[in-house]
Amino acid sequence: MNIAIPLYPRFTALDAVGPYTVLAFAPGCTVTFVAGERGPVADDHGTLSITATATYADLPAPDVIVVPGGSGTFDALADEALVGWIRQAHEHTRWTTSVCSGSLLLGKAGVLEGVRATSHWGVLDELKRYGAEPVSERVVTAGKIVTGAGVSAGIDMALTLLGEAGGVEVAESVQLLIEYDPEPPFDCGSAKKATQEMMGRALSLLP
Amino acid sequence: MNIAIPLYPRFTALDAVGPYTVLAFAPGCTVTFVAGERGPVADDHGTLSITATATYADLPAPDVIVVPGGSGTFDALADEALVGWIRQAHEHTRWTTSVCSGSLLLGKAGVLEGVRATSHWGVLDELKRYGAEPVSERVVTAGKIVTGAGVSAGIDMALTLLGEAGGVEVAESVQLLIEYDPEPPFDCGSAKKATQEMMGRALSLLP
Repeated sequence: MNIAIPLYPRFTALDAVGPYTVLAFAPGCTVTFVAGERGPVADDHGTLSITATATYADLPAPDVIVVPGGSGTFDALADEALVGWIRQAHEHTRWTTSVCSGSLLLGKAGVLEGVRATSHWGVLDELKRYGAEPVSERVVTAGKIVTGAGVSAGIDMALTLLGEAGGVEVAESVQLLIEYDPEPPFDCGSAKKATQEMMGRALSLLP
Repeated sequence: MNIAIPLYPRFTALDAVGPYTVLAFAPGCTVTFVAGERGPVADDHGTLSITATATYADLPAPDVIVVPGGSGTFDALADEALVGWIRQAHEHTRWTTSVCSGSLLLGKAGVLEGVRATSHWGVLDELKRYGAEPVSERVVTAGKIVTGAGVSAGIDMALTLLGEAGGVEVAESVQLLIEYDPEPPFDCGSAKKATQEMMGRALSLLP
């Protein structure tokens, strides 16, 4: 299974690397980072760069796409090379997926019309602009479209996807290998568990 | 707070990027990827490269070091530039930390003698070689040394560290921002929840 993760300036690193690590460990899966041009792409802090090893033109029809979010998503909505690639790739994918605000890019590509989808809690309502039905859940599966909530939710999204794509035994093996038995030190990881003040403080940390 | 994450060939991407994303969002924190030479360093699958922007010589005394694990850890034990840097840096750090098999590199650097520490379940007993006391817990704090269990445990480790270093309010804000309210699709993410057969299958996925 060929999986492509597009990178664009100011993506959030964990959005991309959570699903990457899950999927890359699965047998028969190859994950490729793609961008408009080959070379390093810097994240939202400017302190982490991942190398894109293929261009959009190189990989027009992957089996799976995983679109990350990040502070750069709003600028990326105007990147027709990226959005056009998502639109074209989606016609051939087995799964079209996103993490965090990456779902807005799916929306911009026109693939979320009438579709239940999630996103980071800070931008969930923006999905309505694209005809999607925003759902405040961690992972939302709607046919071949699978969206994950903010940042760390990409790990749950990818394991869920892997359970569907490769079978439960493979997904369980990867979960065990990456020792994904979380013990968050605080119980405040979703908007449902946070006050408005906490949400404001969290969003103020965005670069 | 200056945080340095060393990269070496065949590190596991999420080991480094989980803590990176947590710590990079914290106010006043700067995270730098370091290596023997500046430039891209490839992970254990060979399909993800993160750019090291500084050499060990550039950053001899960071406030915090976060040493990732990966299939390349055993080769890295013989990398005196890396191990020597850990040894020297530890003399000045406020915190010396690791994720997954990265704790073996702390051990090799001689900083775990008589210290409680954790690692990936697959290599936990190896810690004894370095005089450490292996502990099967997700995050282990022993003075200024904080070790995390396998791969995804780096997120919990870094949030725990941030709670100590930056205060609970900052750590909670980051946890909310990265929407870390995990819902693992399966309940098999630790060795305590797995059969020998499952552990064998998981380890067989290692590249």
